[in-house]
Amino acid sequence: MVDILHRIGVTTPAPEATTRRVYDALTTVAGLAGWWTEDTRGSAGVGGRLEFRFPDGGFEMEVAELRPRERVVWRVVGGPDEWVGTTIEWDLRQDGDWTIVLFAHRGWREPVEFMHHCSTKWATFLVSLKALVEHGAGAPSPRDVKIDDWN
Amino acid sequence: MVDILHRIGVTTPAPEATTRRVYDALTTVAGLAGWWTEDTRGSAGVGGRLEFRFPDGGFEMEVAELRPRERVVWRVVGGPDEWVGTTIEWDLRQDGDWTIVLFAHRGWREPVEFMHHCSTKWATFLVSLKALVEHGAGAPSPRDVKIDDWN
Repeated sequence: MVDILHRIGVTTPAPEATTRRVYDALTTVAGLAGWWTEDTRGSAGVGGRLEFRFPDGGFEMEVAELRPRERVVWRVVGGPDEWVGTTIEWDLRQDGDWTIVLFAHRGWREPVEFMHHCSTKWATFLVSLKALVEHGAGAPSPRDVKIDDWN
Repeated sequence: MVDILHRIGVTTPAPEATTRRVYDALTTVAGLAGWWTEDTRGSAGVGGRLEFRFPDGGFEMEVAELRPRERVVWRVVGGPDEWVGTTIEWDLRQDGDWTIVLFAHRGWREPVEFMHHCSTKWATFLVSLKALVEHGAGAPSPRDVKIDDWN
């Protein structure tokens, strides 16, 4: 089993509200549509299902855990074979003026080439999340940063 | 042992020359200074040492393997403790109009928070490499994309 790991820090002129804003961007359909894909649907509460659609496919997640301002966990229940059964974890903490986001996409069976792609792509979406909270505008699909021939 | 994995694709109006240009960006001091850090020094041949300096530190690599247009391997011989002894591998291939770059930073002892940071940061530098070859301008340090409180 192999994991994709990332870290971003988010800072705004109102640091006491930043962690809540990052958490909202991960736990509301409107927030998710602001940095990952504009075509986000579903129910963002614990046990709910979220659908993330892209021009060439998509992912379906079950919301497995929510701890306000601290932790979000999704289980992948639909999408590419390599994704189904994997877990996506978001851990947040406030550290001075920063909100630190630790991201892990865990449980890949093999380090296939598609995993390399998804690792790079996740990084660009995390930068998009940071931009959304810091500046009010992310780069969700279909306006996402293109990294290779797959997207 | 855990690895950071990434994938980018590079395409230009002269695809037959793209792989060579990506390879040059990985194997010349001027090329490396165009996407990773402007303060790059040293010798880029096999057995040579390359120094990559950043405002808060840097890395020293030994060039372990060079296969023109196909593969570059560096061994980290200086820098943060977590990096020393790790290996950085670049595998290139031409695939139609694209040059596909598979990147691996292998041999991390533990998935520490600094590894999360470096994974995200590597992605932004790979996007910088792509921009350098496609458009003639990357975003090397100190003009690099800032992702968190560490850089």
